[in-house]
Amino acid sequence: MALTPARTMPGVLELLPLDQIAFQRMLDVIRRNYERFGFLAIETPVIEFSDVLLTKTGGETERQVYFVQSTGALNAAGKVDEGMPELALRFDLTVPLARYVAEHERDLSFPFRRYQMQKVYRGERAQRGRFREFYQCDIDVIGKDALSVRYDAEIPAVIHSVFRELDIGPFTIHMNNRKLMRGYFESLGVLDAEQQMLVLREVDKLDKRGADYVRDTLTGAAFGLDAEVTAKILAFVQVRSTSLQDALDKLDALGPGPEAMEQGRAELKEVLNLIHAFGVPESAYALNLSIARGLDYYTGTVYETTLNDHPQIGSICSGGRYENLAGQYTKSHLPGVGISIGLTRLYWQLRDAGLIDTAKSTVDVLVTQMDEAQLPAYLALAGELRGAGIATEVVLEGGKLGKQFKYADRAGIRFVIVLGEDEIAKGVVTVKDLRREDQFEVARSELIKTLRVELEQAAAMG
Amino acid sequence: MALTPARTMPGVLELLPLDQIAFQRMLDVIRRNYERFGFLAIETPVIEFSDVLLTKTGGETERQVYFVQSTGALNAAGKVDEGMPELALRFDLTVPLARYVAEHERDLSFPFRRYQMQKVYRGERAQRGRFREFYQCDIDVIGKDALSVRYDAEIPAVIHSVFRELDIGPFTIHMNNRKLMRGYFESLGVLDAEQQMLVLREVDKLDKRGADYVRDTLTGAAFGLDAEVTAKILAFVQVRSTSLQDALDKLDALGPGPEAMEQGRAELKEVLNLIHAFGVPESAYALNLSIARGLDYYTGTVYETTLNDHPQIGSICSGGRYENLAGQYTKSHLPGVGISIGLTRLYWQLRDAGLIDTAKSTVDVLVTQMDEAQLPAYLALAGELRGAGIATEVVLEGGKLGKQFKYADRAGIRFVIVLGEDEIAKGVVTVKDLRREDQFEVARSELIKTLRVELEQAAAMG
Repeated sequence: MALTPARTMPGVLELLPLDQIAFQRMLDVIRRNYERFGFLAIETPVIEFSDVLLTKTGGETERQVYFVQSTGALNAAGKVDEGMPELALRFDLTVPLARYVAEHERDLSFPFRRYQMQKVYRGERAQRGRFREFYQCDIDVIGKDALSVRYDAEIPAVIHSVFRELDIGPFTIHMNNRKLMRGYFESLGVLDAEQQMLVLREVDKLDKRGADYVRDTLTGAAFGLDAEVTAKILAFVQVRSTSLQDALDKLDALGPGPEAMEQGRAELKEVLNLIHAFGVPESAYALNLSIARGLDYYTGTVYETTLNDHPQIGSICSGGRYENLAGQYTKSHLPGVGISIGLTRLYWQLRDAGLIDTAKSTVDVLVTQMDEAQLPAYLALAGELRGAGIATEVVLEGGKLGKQFKYADRAGIRFVIVLGEDEIAKGVVTVKDLRREDQFEVARSELIKTLRVELEQAAAMG
Repeated sequence: MALTPARTMPGVLELLPLDQIAFQRMLDVIRRNYERFGFLAIETPVIEFSDVLLTKTGGETERQVYFVQSTGALNAAGKVDEGMPELALRFDLTVPLARYVAEHERDLSFPFRRYQMQKVYRGERAQRGRFREFYQCDIDVIGKDALSVRYDAEIPAVIHSVFRELDIGPFTIHMNNRKLMRGYFESLGVLDAEQQMLVLREVDKLDKRGADYVRDTLTGAAFGLDAEVTAKILAFVQVRSTSLQDALDKLDALGPGPEAMEQGRAELKEVLNLIHAFGVPESAYALNLSIARGLDYYTGTVYETTLNDHPQIGSICSGGRYENLAGQYTKSHLPGVGISIGLTRLYWQLRDAGLIDTAKSTVDVLVTQMDEAQLPAYLALAGELRGAGIATEVVLEGGKLGKQFKYADRAGIRFVIVLGEDEIAKGVVTVKDLRREDQFEVARSELIKTLRVELEQAAAMG
């Protein structure tokens, strides 16, 4: 039989076991923190009806949706029938959340606090760092009819808790408010929402192209803004705070504005003060009036999070407040606030930047096979260790001890147990620590206690 | 805008939050036990190249594969182009494992012990209890060139460990050996492998149709077997053991046979004896010579697991030994042994049979809002609890206390904290236990310790 080359499609991140363990640890940290803040897990199917996913026109090309057809849809010639497929893969977790809440509305308690950590699919062009399959780790709080702006202050507390425990360096949660922004633009005579968006898109190029380029564009034919208006816009989007008080002061310093601006400013102030009450240190968040996050969805607070030492990675956790989650499915008014961590891309970037340590194995201990006749003793020992919650692998197929050590080393297993006739007679066990390249003898009755201490120390040392 | 009905496609199991928690707990138990036995996590992409997934002809219709095409594959008319799609969704975890091992062979340590808990997709006919998306929780041990039959004895130890902790009632791991079976059939003159499979398929109807029906079929025109041969077959497949010694005795009682039979018997005996050394109680496993599991893939030991009190559920965990994992992708010889738990179906059946308790929430504590002015105190308290690992939700939007209790009750949150001006002045906290419909006052400084004890007790009581 001719061999089929074993390969995955481009744009997926498939990991070797030790990398998978490192990735899984990040997932676990995120999940633990989401749960600690009282968010509830949901999972939705990967496949949804196309008409449910694509209620917004133009979505399918923008999102590069994957369509799905079962074998049943193949015609007699083995070809797929023509026409818009009935099914598609989800391209984010927000549309499925909207569908979920609309479908199960009567069975949910509001405010509905959900987390969801699943993969999503986008038919991206194959390109380094672009993923066609990637994890999103989302939280959202959904209100029925209304949702206090206080929930907007809880989100940064969750972000802070997650990234502190992920331990990938100092980070800043940048915050802005869409109403403040809209109101400020209105006060400058830029009234049209689309025009505002185009201006913001230009402003986004500040870092890359510089202030002169952006100023020239905005005062040029395409926009035709006054030099004074342009200067004010550039000043506005460059506002950054250095402390809570500084943030409040800088918001006041913007001067009076139209209703939307005042509302946005009041919201931001309330949120900033409450973040403080949530115990988030002032070094972890900042007012940043350049944050916009697309005009069509977010309506109030918006968030982006960056790593202070790695700004090139961009935002690692973004989101905001929206007016109505599921207007396409239900007449219920469901405002909400949420964020998303794109973990696949984040992991990949961190690894690329050398910020992810090589993981240890999830296997704590390898019980070697020194003497085939003692296999039952090895199995009994392994059973005891497992009973004590210590992940244990037993070498079932003998061979040279040196080869068994090499296997453990390559597999990232730190502790290796050697148990020969002598040791069994003496009631002791030899433990080899492959990390420290050291070994010690311990009484059989003390083994579990000793290993637990060693493993806890190893976990604490990272 | 016209509303789109919010709905999922048939054949998917979407759960409400408390059910999702119960499901997640089962996933966690399985994962914990797989890791405890030293299996390593891998994840593979949901989408694979069709030619990689479908190396075996006829597979696509049998498996009812879902094909996938991105928007880019739509032609100008918005239709999907004709022809066999390049991509498809995985229909099990075995083919992706084979592809993974073949692709990463040089980077893996053998024996390669992997677990994988992901969803798979099959375009099943919509029908109660048939799922188009479902979790498989697999373990496999893959050897390079060879793999000792001892690994076949480890698998029941893992199964036992998993289902004991899942705590869904007594269960039996039924075991057989394909070589033993093949050899025995050969000794009766049923030489052809396909013919053997057809006979076994008839034999499978014993429970439903009765012995007379099966005997008539096998001695009838379609099979034309002797009455004596038929009687021997029926006696063989009805062999069940009641203890380890009984299993060994019954294997001996089969009498001598051709080489394959002797080999299978020797393997089974070694496996049974070693299972004992692994500490699996004799009540948890049995020799069952009716277990076949399809002739084309498994070559040695085969397993099925049933719940003693719910035989109608059928096998909840099946698998076996195979000769070569990835012959379609690599010239390396990769024998292995593994099992799969179809968790979605199992969960659904257990729930259907009333065997799954309503889960408690993952939220341990709700901090109510008695007095809006005290919100900072509530947030500080919640921060302390979270810091101590207690999952805590805070009511951020006030309202009547009674309504807040009702929310907690409905959401499955057991402990509710009430903190008014009086309590703050006295340095105490009122804890309401909604399960016991009881409440008590505790010193603020003792709160974490007290809640930990309560939560541990609650967890221990199940």
